[in-house]
Amino acid sequence: MIIELKESVQKAQAEKLSIAYQALLFQENGKYILVTPFKQKNITPEVESLAQRVTHTSSDIQLASKDFRAQKRTITIGEITIGGNTQNTIVITGPCSVESEAQITACAELCVKTGVKILRAGSFKPRTSPYSFQGLAEEGLQLLHKIRSTFGLQIITEVKDSSHVHQVIEYADIIQVGAKAMYDQAILRACAKTQKPVLIKRGFGSTLQEFVQAAEFVLSGGNPNVILCERGIRTFETKTRFTLDLCGVSWLKENTNLPIIVDPSHAMGFAYGVSDLCRAAVAMGIDGVLIETHPNPATAQSDAEQQLTFEQFTALHKSLQPIAAAINYRIV
Amino acid sequence: MIIELKESVQKAQAEKLSIAYQALLFQENGKYILVTPFKQKNITPEVESLAQRVTHTSSDIQLASKDFRAQKRTITIGEITIGGNTQNTIVITGPCSVESEAQITACAELCVKTGVKILRAGSFKPRTSPYSFQGLAEEGLQLLHKIRSTFGLQIITEVKDSSHVHQVIEYADIIQVGAKAMYDQAILRACAKTQKPVLIKRGFGSTLQEFVQAAEFVLSGGNPNVILCERGIRTFETKTRFTLDLCGVSWLKENTNLPIIVDPSHAMGFAYGVSDLCRAAVAMGIDGVLIETHPNPATAQSDAEQQLTFEQFTALHKSLQPIAAAINYRIV
Amino acid sequence: MIIELKESVQKAQAEKLSIAYQALLFQENGKYILVTPFKQKNITPEVESLAQRVTHTSSDIQLASKDFRAQKRTITIGEITIGGNTQNTIVITGPCSVESEAQITACAELCVKTGVKILRAGSFKPRTSPYSFQGLAEEGLQLLHKIRSTFGLQIITEVKDSSHVHQVIEYADIIQVGAKAMYDQAILRACAKTQKPVLIKRGFGSTLQEFVQAAEFVLSGGNPNVILCERGIRTFETKTRFTLDLCGVSWLKENTNLPIIVDPSHAMGFAYGVSDLCRAAVAMGIDGVLIETHPNPATAQSDAEQQLTFEQFTALHKSLQPIAAAINYRIV
Amino acid sequence: MIIELKESVQKAQAEKLSIAYQALLFQENGKYILVTPFKQKNITPEVESLAQRVTHTSSDIQLASKDFRAQKRTITIGEITIGGNTQNTIVITGPCSVESEAQITACAELCVKTGVKILRAGSFKPRTSPYSFQGLAEEGLQLLHKIRSTFGLQIITEVKDSSHVHQVIEYADIIQVGAKAMYDQAILRACAKTQKPVLIKRGFGSTLQEFVQAAEFVLSGGNPNVILCERGIRTFETKTRFTLDLCGVSWLKENTNLPIIVDPSHAMGFAYGVSDLCRAAVAMGIDGVLIETHPNPATAQSDAEQQLTFEQFTALHKSLQPIAAAINYRIV
Repeated sequence: MIIELKESVQKAQAEKLSIAYQALLFQENGKYILVTPFKQKNITPEVESLAQRVTHTSSDIQLASKDFRAQKRTITIGEITIGGNTQNTIVITGPCSVESEAQITACAELCVKTGVKILRAGSFKPRTSPYSFQGLAEEGLQLLHKIRSTFGLQIITEVKDSSHVHQVIEYADIIQVGAKAMYDQAILRACAKTQKPVLIKRGFGSTLQEFVQAAEFVLSGGNPNVILCERGIRTFETKTRFTLDLCGVSWLKENTNLPIIVDPSHAMGFAYGVSDLCRAAVAMGIDGVLIETHPNPATAQSDAEQQLTFEQFTALHKSLQPIAAAINYRIV
Repeated sequence: MIIELKESVQKAQAEKLSIAYQALLFQENGKYILVTPFKQKNITPEVESLAQRVTHTSSDIQLASKDFRAQKRTITIGEITIGGNTQNTIVITGPCSVESEAQITACAELCVKTGVKILRAGSFKPRTSPYSFQGLAEEGLQLLHKIRSTFGLQIITEVKDSSHVHQVIEYADIIQVGAKAMYDQAILRACAKTQKPVLIKRGFGSTLQEFVQAAEFVLSGGNPNVILCERGIRTFETKTRFTLDLCGVSWLKENTNLPIIVDPSHAMGFAYGVSDLCRAAVAMGIDGVLIETHPNPATAQSDAEQQLTFEQFTALHKSLQPIAAAINYRIV
Repeated sequence: MIIELKESVQKAQAEKLSIAYQALLFQENGKYILVTPFKQKNITPEVESLAQRVTHTSSDIQLASKDFRAQKRTITIGEITIGGNTQNTIVITGPCSVESEAQITACAELCVKTGVKILRAGSFKPRTSPYSFQGLAEEGLQLLHKIRSTFGLQIITEVKDSSHVHQVIEYADIIQVGAKAMYDQAILRACAKTQKPVLIKRGFGSTLQEFVQAAEFVLSGGNPNVILCERGIRTFETKTRFTLDLCGVSWLKENTNLPIIVDPSHAMGFAYGVSDLCRAAVAMGIDGVLIETHPNPATAQSDAEQQLTFEQFTALHKSLQPIAAAINYRIV
Repeated sequence: MIIELKESVQKAQAEKLSIAYQALLFQENGKYILVTPFKQKNITPEVESLAQRVTHTSSDIQLASKDFRAQKRTITIGEITIGGNTQNTIVITGPCSVESEAQITACAELCVKTGVKILRAGSFKPRTSPYSFQGLAEEGLQLLHKIRSTFGLQIITEVKDSSHVHQVIEYADIIQVGAKAMYDQAILRACAKTQKPVLIKRGFGSTLQEFVQAAEFVLSGGNPNVILCERGIRTFETKTRFTLDLCGVSWLKENTNLPIIVDPSHAMGFAYGVSDLCRAAVAMGIDGVLIETHPNPATAQSDAEQQLTFEQFTALHKSLQPIAAAINYRIV
């Protein structure tokens, strides 16, 4: 249960209650909020008198639930706002990995040219083989930092384990929690200590329930700026890399208050299907799409098969606005 | 390998070759076509001299492959044509099951009112429990027959096992092979003997390879009018009934020459997500959608949770044309 | 709910009740049994007076449930009995397909030599490609019939669709409903009209609930002799053909009253793992195992990779008795 | 490719080659070993002259492959040895979480009483909800340390993220990399710096290929003592918590040189099936089993449903020896 305490309740008293209820405690807009396991339903008269509102939920999807907050959360990234009643769909693009200054500069120029405001690129790559390219690490983060100043773009980059979470938090405008790191509580708790937007990718073996519970780690630590990203789940079908779960996106829209971004590139795993799937996602009315592009996909050091060329991306980008318009959304 | 024989080759000779090659044989546009297992690559000089064209494929997706026929097949249903270069997306709607004359008449009126040309409804229901409603069987088929004449609609209805396949073939304008019957070769072979369009639903545990191979049973038996229908696969996610595999749809578009219809109703299993998913599918550029509607979903004898009300369907239908237009398609 | 009527209740009265309750009706040991959907809980005073016992279950697993019959059912196959409190584990072996008289005779000789009492072999093969070997059909059934007389073996053979179900029922001692036919109600209902044992293979995309509900079709039609066979489910793992679900076997043992047989050959898909998996299954305390063997697996016309040689099978068979003995079971 | 350098090759030269080949480098038994991506097949005459042996593999399963080392690795834990040709199957038991000194002492006493040499218990719990019990952390590790001295047991405990990996490495006799942390390279690389045995649990959404590649991170960092643990994968079946993949265990036995331990408790998720599944695993000929036990499962703070009572465990343990003996193994 979620207990929103009155504005008059002081820190010491809130902490006392937190201990008594074995509840998580954080502050939002000057007020203290306690969260207990959802099965805990008892509330003493004392707490009742201190509470502004008490919300019961049917599972440990609590702060992210429509029960707690009926309207979708609004998240601000630079000059862009998504969620709430904005009807904005943001486009994010860039390569899988930062590979060189020339490569990332080319991608930044593509963004500027197409009007894309947010550049994506990974510096710490969660590869499954130790013998594959592992990313440029700190050096990649510095290249991204330079690109941001030069081109005025927002940067989203991935944290793959907690050993470098603080570096990523420092450098990124949006912190991406990778699919393979979705259960990493050290990352999630670190992300809760900042107010920067956190995009959590769904683990490819994770249920929707677990996915949203990962968001709860960040929300209940005091950072309300969480975005969910569907990027495909693992199924028996292997002709495509993963299976994009748009039924899951419908469920998330119906049941949570978090903005949703869809990544068709990782789901499909092959460039040929990315544009169709991206258009499909946009037609659902979502808050953003994340598309991998590369100046020369054939030479990419990771995810070579799924990255779009600049020409493919430009054509795709152009096709999105009419679809968004058809459902009263807008590409930003 | 597919051996298209010259027009001059007579039946007796074609049959002799068919035996020699252990190949399937059928006739299309007056010419005989032989299909051997794809691994069979040897061709005698005699056959070479009789063949107009020989096609090698990389798997037993042969007649359905782009290698055999680069352009998507065109299929005619009443006055409507889909596939080929028509850029048409057909809308099919109706209840899960025929329940009564009043109910099916109401659905037919909805079709007329919204401009939908094809009515769907099941008479033989492949329920997983013997204690659930099993459909009206023959009686349902007769009701559908009456509706067709009265309202001038095309009828699609499902065959669930081979015991009633001939009745369905007789009554339906489009024969639907249900997801649970996708491997039923007695059904598939019976469907090969007619020239009516056959819509094959993907089994929820079936790979794309197996799905298209089911179509090969019909195609290689001499019926070229096969439509594939993606309707959700079974995955670990259980918040939704199935997982709609739009990555798979991309793969089918890229690799096969068959028209593709998407059924978001069975995939989602809940009415709330159907409209968004339907719009997503249309934005991909597909040949049709199949939507369950019911005059009063709460009282439906099967699939109660996923059927749209007439109001929901009417709003959905209206929203599809602008999306189709955005990608140069047309709702028919 | 299951209503077991008193012995005194006559057919006409039972049928009247069956209509009033929309219940399935069958006769067992001279008494009539009605089964309604499990959610139906109301019972009139009249019925109460006619009922010997009424059983409520928590799902449409009714006749197969421990609630209805706490002890496992006993099934007799020739001179062998499995289930009940016999602690017998039966071994069944033979090739995937009947290919020739020489081949099936060799397999029968292997059975005789190792003490195996039941021979398996398919005549109608549910291949996913029309261009693969489809089985010898009727001719195969006649070969199996001949083998039975010659060698005194029991025969289990598969029905893949309802077009030949009556032939299989006539020829087989145990009717095998194939995994791809598990939802085929025409087959299941035909199997309900005989008293021969029916072995139902779990569909590889089927839940345990659906699997047992397939058995309900046979049980509620009046044939109490149903055996369940776990043969692997389809998962994201593709290094092996399927994933043998022994957790599922535990669930079936705990929740149903049906004998259980495990087929490690189809699950694994490669000969190298079959023996280990077979020993694993036997160590759980089950009612039987089904192992594919072939005089020369490399030349087999179907499932070549997973069939054991006679040497491998003989060694495996020898190793099973001590394992069975360790848990107080016996290989028969 | 794996290049084992001659004993005469010095560090500086090995490092130079490592850079030239972009290869990972580590030392084993005084010799340097280089590992390049498996696709790299070129070898200069210079390297050829310095190499004792070069191994090519068909995937990035390299150091763990049978191609590199045909015999299973031997691993020593206290006085016990598993793997190699020992035919030993080790039993590990204990609670899901350390909850209190009394609780963990009771479990240690159970070990002593039944002859179990290794106690398992988690201190850092990777729960999917932030509102669930998260483990005693450091305090739990100290309790385990105390137990080790008092009872002379070996301790296996889990690391869930890289923030506490060094503490776990310090306290544990066997470091358990949890299923949710299997892709965490900071953990894997830290485990490579010690020589303590590392048990890697398979992620429930991870392929066998990825699972063994996780081991490659540890092996290629210089720690040869890796054990694989199968603990169930996530499938469409939800009657049980996960699906124990014993087909996968067969594949691992056939293709890798790493000892294998099976955890039936997490796979099943319910106490009732654990004993049967444990017996199944032992009958396959594996290197160990990992069983959750608790003095009072009903009150457990995590995994309450799947932990065995002491009575259940004692009965299970007793039943294992005859099964192991039947296949020439021994419970240790």
